[in-house]
Amino acid sequence: MQQEFASTLLEGAVTELSRLPGIGRKTALRLALHILRCDEGVGVSLGEAIIKMRQGIRYCTLCHNISETEICPLCADMRRDHSTVCVVENVKDVMSIENTGQFKGVYHVLGGVISPMDGIGPDSLTIDSLVERVAAGEVSEVILALGATMEGETTNFYIYRKLAPYSKVKITQLARGVAVGNEIEYTDEVTLGRSLLNRTLFSDSIHH
Amino acid sequence: MQQEFASTLLEGAVTELSRLPGIGRKTALRLALHILRCDEGVGVSLGEAIIKMRQGIRYCTLCHNISETEICPLCADMRRDHSTVCVVENVKDVMSIENTGQFKGVYHVLGGVISPMDGIGPDSLTIDSLVERVAAGEVSEVILALGATMEGETTNFYIYRKLAPYSKVKITQLARGVAVGNEIEYTDEVTLGRSLLNRTLFSDSIHH
Repeated sequence: MQQEFASTLLEGAVTELSRLPGIGRKTALRLALHILRCDEGVGVSLGEAIIKMRQGIRYCTLCHNISETEICPLCADMRRDHSTVCVVENVKDVMSIENTGQFKGVYHVLGGVISPMDGIGPDSLTIDSLVERVAAGEVSEVILALGATMEGETTNFYIYRKLAPYSKVKITQLARGVAVGNEIEYTDEVTLGRSLLNRTLFSDSIHH
Repeated sequence: MQQEFASTLLEGAVTELSRLPGIGRKTALRLALHILRCDEGVGVSLGEAIIKMRQGIRYCTLCHNISETEICPLCADMRRDHSTVCVVENVKDVMSIENTGQFKGVYHVLGGVISPMDGIGPDSLTIDSLVERVAAGEVSEVILALGATMEGETTNFYIYRKLAPYSKVKITQLARGVAVGNEIEYTDEVTLGRSLLNRTLFSDSIHH
């Protein structure tokens, strides 16, 4: 149902807000009315922050992570191990892995995974750029850190084939297994089967 | 958990977005990354629509509905019945009632209901302004269209007392009863009791 708005300015803001994912017109109206109830400064700084972000952020020419500079801070950091490249689907994954504090290498953001159903082929992703980085000769390990989904596995395999000519480069992937904190009872059979096949020495886990 | 952001511009936008009601930092990040993936124009026009709305909208000096002009289009419309004033809690209620197409009078937006628990007393609302409108003498009916809640009923009664000196003004309230489309089985007892007491002639309903 199209609601009648008392103001075209309100209607404009509601229309723009409802373009955001997961925000329908009802929620957009609630947000817009909230912004109207707040101090003027709050609404203006929200609008300005969005514009500044959209205009100021570009993508790192090396790893394709978001960046305010041509080379992102992670790629520019000489204390990081530039011979280990972790391939991830998107910017959020970089944040998730950074938050673990377990990785000191650099990243390569694909911008998605191969998904013919969604019209995403290898050419829509930054796979060529990854091959170029590997071809340049300074990479010794590529860690495939894509999701354990059909699309993720397909993309892993595609990249694996693409990097096959560079036989000196080690290609690894994230361990699959029972998630930490999960009960065996609630772990799916495929994961459980894989975690049995890839079982590790208990003594190794003690050292971590 | 505080996430590490690759960009202060992104962090700024996420912080501002997460101030909106019902939007936590995770959702704010998802929205910000969506805006980054869209065309630059989409993000900029979202930001501009918010700023324009916040700076351009003020409140009607008569009914306190949102408006781009001193007097809102509803109050300025001379085809509407200015002797019937419908008292509502907020701007959304005006839209809801307008959408019914059943009301041709004008509104009075209280800006809330009396709720001592939330620190909202009569002075936080536009009740004095309503009394002034009635005192001016052109109002013949005040329709109390507040929610059927404890706070709504309290506010109704407060307004009723305030308007008591103007004995020529009819004070009505929305009918309480079984909601259209609802089963008797699932209607609460208080509503059912009230709808029995206030039963209406069946022949009246045929004429509508």
